Amino acid sequence: MAMSIDPIALARDLINCRSITPATGAVFEVLERALQPFGFEVHRLVSGEAPDGPVENLVALRGSGSPHLGFAGHLDVVPPGEGWSGDPFDARIVDGRLIGRGANDMKSAVAAFAAAASRVEQQAGTVSLLITGDEEGPATFGTPKIIEWLEERSIRPDMIVIGEPTSEAALGDTVKIGRRGSVNMWIEVPGTQGHVAYPHRADNPVPRLARIVAALDALHLDDGSEAFPPSNLEFTDIACPPGATNLIPANASARLNIRFNNLQRGADLVRMVEEVVGSEAPGATVRALISGEAFLTPPGPIYDIVVDAIRAETGVEPKLSTSGGTSDGRFLTALCPVVDFGLPNATMHKVDESVAVADIEKLANIYERVIRSAQA
Amino acid sequence: MAMSIDPIALARDLINCRSITPATGAVFEVLERALQPFGFEVHRLVSGEAPDGPVENLVALRGSGSPHLGFAGHLDVVPPGEGWSGDPFDARIVDGRLIGRGANDMKSAVAAFAAAASRVEQQAGTVSLLITGDEEGPATFGTPKIIEWLEERSIRPDMIVIGEPTSEAALGDTVKIGRRGSVNMWIEVPGTQGHVAYPHRADNPVPRLARIVAALDALHLDDGSEAFPPSNLEFTDIACPPGATNLIPANASARLNIRFNNLQRGADLVRMVEEVVGSEAPGATVRALISGEAFLTPPGPIYDIVVDAIRAETGVEPKLSTSGGTSDGRFLTALCPVVDFGLPNATMHKVDESVAVADIEKLANIYERVIRSAQA
Repeated sequence: MAMSIDPIALARDLINCRSITPATGAVFEVLERALQPFGFEVHRLVSGEAPDGPVENLVALRGSGSPHLGFAGHLDVVPPGEGWSGDPFDARIVDGRLIGRGANDMKSAVAAFAAAASRVEQQAGTVSLLITGDEEGPATFGTPKIIEWLEERSIRPDMIVIGEPTSEAALGDTVKIGRRGSVNMWIEVPGTQGHVAYPHRADNPVPRLARIVAALDALHLDDGSEAFPPSNLEFTDIACPPGATNLIPANASARLNIRFNNLQRGADLVRMVEEVVGSEAPGATVRALISGEAFLTPPGPIYDIVVDAIRAETGVEPKLSTSGGTSDGRFLTALCPVVDFGLPNATMHKVDESVAVADIEKLANIYERVIRSAQA
Repeated sequence: MAMSIDPIALARDLINCRSITPATGAVFEVLERALQPFGFEVHRLVSGEAPDGPVENLVALRGSGSPHLGFAGHLDVVPPGEGWSGDPFDARIVDGRLIGRGANDMKSAVAAFAAAASRVEQQAGTVSLLITGDEEGPATFGTPKIIEWLEERSIRPDMIVIGEPTSEAALGDTVKIGRRGSVNMWIEVPGTQGHVAYPHRADNPVPRLARIVAALDALHLDDGSEAFPPSNLEFTDIACPPGATNLIPANASARLNIRFNNLQRGADLVRMVEEVVGSEAPGATVRALISGEAFLTPPGPIYDIVVDAIRAETGVEPKLSTSGGTSDGRFLTALCPVVDFGLPNATMHKVDESVAVADIEKLANIYERVIRSAQA
């Protein structure tokens, strides 16, 4: 067997590929070359067309059958933005921190898992890497395509660890065992444009929209569940067509987002909003897009395996959390129990995104313990 | 004395000057040359700087002392827009209608008054034309400058007829004896921007703005007065800064207009809105711009003079109205009793703006009767 993978060197090589979402090509080439000496069968799948594609996904499999431990992650990154102290796609280490776009979210975690897998001989069952090129974008051709590919081959992991940066103050302090669901809705209230001096010839949609906003804001969705905070509705926009100081607008619109817990279903929330809108403003319309349903991984072996590995490596007792944004767990939960665990996330999506080199080494050790436990 | 002015020919000459608001120069030159043979002393006053200026105003005076009949109007026009059947600044007569920008609002009325004045010898008192180049714009350097000029010289008209197109179905059917006031207000509600997944770190301004809109919309301002409809509040805009579906906006704003009757004062309405805003959303701000207070010309000789002239010339019994938009009467009412009377207004500000040639002739006859009565 070859020497094991150096997670720092692999993280640097991955960061040096400019893989702004949606990603294809070089960054997957780097990962494939790194994994091949360690017994992985690597499948690279490109699908989709502009604007949501093309997207590359990579499935690396070693061994066969149960127990099957999957590691899920992504190699696409958000755009770097302005103001970096150096080239965001030329990784460098300064004062013990690896700096570059994706250092934190989440190329270092992919490298750490590859390194961990390279140190463990496959004794039983399967280890897989399920790596997408579109986690930061609409994901239309991302993780759902990996799931399709696995299902077509009747390959079903028994547990999945997603390497998103879930830690907060220190590596190991937070494991995510579920995520809230998310739905966006667009409300449009029609009116009749006209001159403010002749209001009887017009019909102002703004007060109706205001009543809708006030009524939806006053709703009590739920009190939260054991694992989740209360579901929450936020308005993210209100607008009219451009007009003048003497013009009653032709229509008015609002956009909202609901982050919801496992007491709710997206479709029910849409129906509830439709009812409020219909009662406050007959004729108003609601368009909805459910980004993902809430999910919660029930207590089971995956909790113990991950928590024990963290405790043994860092001495930290992790908090099991459902807070924060969505991850591809919203898709993968359809396959098997899923948890998210990775690096401290303070710099994700920011300028001069970085991660402590020591944390990458420790994360590789934690993932190595997870792989060994899953085979035991 | 020279031959009298042909109102149709003068209207054409005025329309052929491209005097988009604010106006200076050629269009005033045309009017000055027309008036000079008929005993008028013409003063042309240019003032102001961009963006509201420069603006030209013209004061033409004939005779001296009381009774002083003033005629007020404007030679600026709104931009022509697209879709005309010909050049909007090349007046032409088709099927008995004079077509061109300003034919209706209100170069033909200025021409009609000049023609009327040219037919009457000054027996006693004063006739004046008070013509601004900025009635369609902010009016900062418009009619208020004419008023200043008159006051500096202790010249005070006893009654003023404004030649705005007030007629509706037929020439003579409507005289405006007052106008509502108008005030615009801008409400801004501050918030704290943040991610919808972490609402405890943000503060959404949209529901507070909605409560303000609903509360202001529910206000009952008044029941109207003898001469005016109820005061009315309309929202003309609501907005947030551009954002994303996962972003709680940093602030939210609304714009409103109140058209108010003579039971209200602009400053009181501003205070009332400030109180509602302060109680619904402490920290929100209100900015206000009062365009004009409501005014009503009390019954007096000017009513009889204008109504009698209309009745004698057309057989129509005019309605005395306070409806519709503002006019420079909001300024001139400070000097003396004011009424607005002019052409049918169906095409004002529209594409292919036009007026019946016969109506211009009749309007000149009506104004001639007014001038004669005022001197009697």
